[in-house]
Amino acid sequence: MLVLSSPSGAGKTTLSRMLLAAETGLEMSVSVTTRPMRPGEIDGEDYIFVSSEEFNTMRDAGGLLEWALVFDNFYGTPKSLVEKALREGRDVMFDIDWQGAENLTKTDHEKDLVTVFILPPSGDALESRLKGRAQDTPEVVKRRMAGASNEIQHWDDYEYVVINTDVEKSLLELKAILAAERLKRTRRTGLKKFVRGIQAKL
Amino acid sequence: MLVLSSPSGAGKTTLSRMLLAAETGLEMSVSVTTRPMRPGEIDGEDYIFVSSEEFNTMRDAGGLLEWALVFDNFYGTPKSLVEKALREGRDVMFDIDWQGAENLTKTDHEKDLVTVFILPPSGDALESRLKGRAQDTPEVVKRRMAGASNEIQHWDDYEYVVINTDVEKSLLELKAILAAERLKRTRRTGLKKFVRGIQAKL
Repeated sequence: MLVLSSPSGAGKTTLSRMLLAAETGLEMSVSVTTRPMRPGEIDGEDYIFVSSEEFNTMRDAGGLLEWALVFDNFYGTPKSLVEKALREGRDVMFDIDWQGAENLTKTDHEKDLVTVFILPPSGDALESRLKGRAQDTPEVVKRRMAGASNEIQHWDDYEYVVINTDVEKSLLELKAILAAERLKRTRRTGLKKFVRGIQAKL
Repeated sequence: MLVLSSPSGAGKTTLSRMLLAAETGLEMSVSVTTRPMRPGEIDGEDYIFVSSEEFNTMRDAGGLLEWALVFDNFYGTPKSLVEKALREGRDVMFDIDWQGAENLTKTDHEKDLVTVFILPPSGDALESRLKGRAQDTPEVVKRRMAGASNEIQHWDDYEYVVINTDVEKSLLELKAILAAERLKRTRRTGLKKFVRGIQAKL
């Protein structure tokens, strides 16, 4: 369970898409949310957009691995996709905020988590990304800055830190993290039997 | 502190040399030993060969990070090279046995350790490597098999496991482990200040 968090504007979405395209055996966890769909978003890809009633039903039926209320909207991680993938030996990537990441540490899957915080190359770069397009109202920019400020406070709750100065370099770093984590003894299956086979020859 | 252990015949020496050549900022810790030099070995490269008196003097002066007695010979890790490298931001690789690895976990450097056990691709492959050249006496082969058998018992004390089926693939795996470990928040310096600089812009 590879968790990527970052302030918006640090390039996390681009990186997670690139990693998904580059890696076999890795799939994306798509969160459910009750917040309205924004222009350009795709239902089932960016989020699974549901009503409050649908959200409550999922949650009450134990269908969410974790959930949180953020600015009057509910967000949650559907359990079935994640658990099926893990059972079948595939990895799952999560593009979630610090609250979602923290909630995942409280589930039975804590030992499966690999958490990465992505930082922008500099304050200036982040600022110019967040100020964004000319048509954004000052209020929109202000809210975006506040959100980034809130998110970045939690950088030191994460195990790995990637500074996204160059997207290709950052992609290699994420691939290295994934490759290394897959080599951890505790994440590998069948090793005991394999070693016993070797010992039988000695 | 990247620790590589394996039964002899699994390809550890080849791999550690390749990794050393491929990586900048990584150097080798050369152990001291009181055992006699074998044909083909180079003093100061394979080991630093010393007398028992010299060994005792180093050890009693606190010059060894760890030491052990193995089959009547002393082995130890000189402290100065390791601590200088770490202080200057370089990484150090250790080609040591399970006992050396275990001893390192008891030093002040436990949090710096990254331990990797290298397994041969199969029991047959290891057996044929250990049986080695035709001129080896049965006794030499027997001792070598017993040594490998003893070493492999400790595979599950290590954090990472690399199965050395293909030396190029194993090299990539070791590079990924090193790259990922260098991205761990707790191993990086200057991040707090860097994040404060970003926060100042938000």
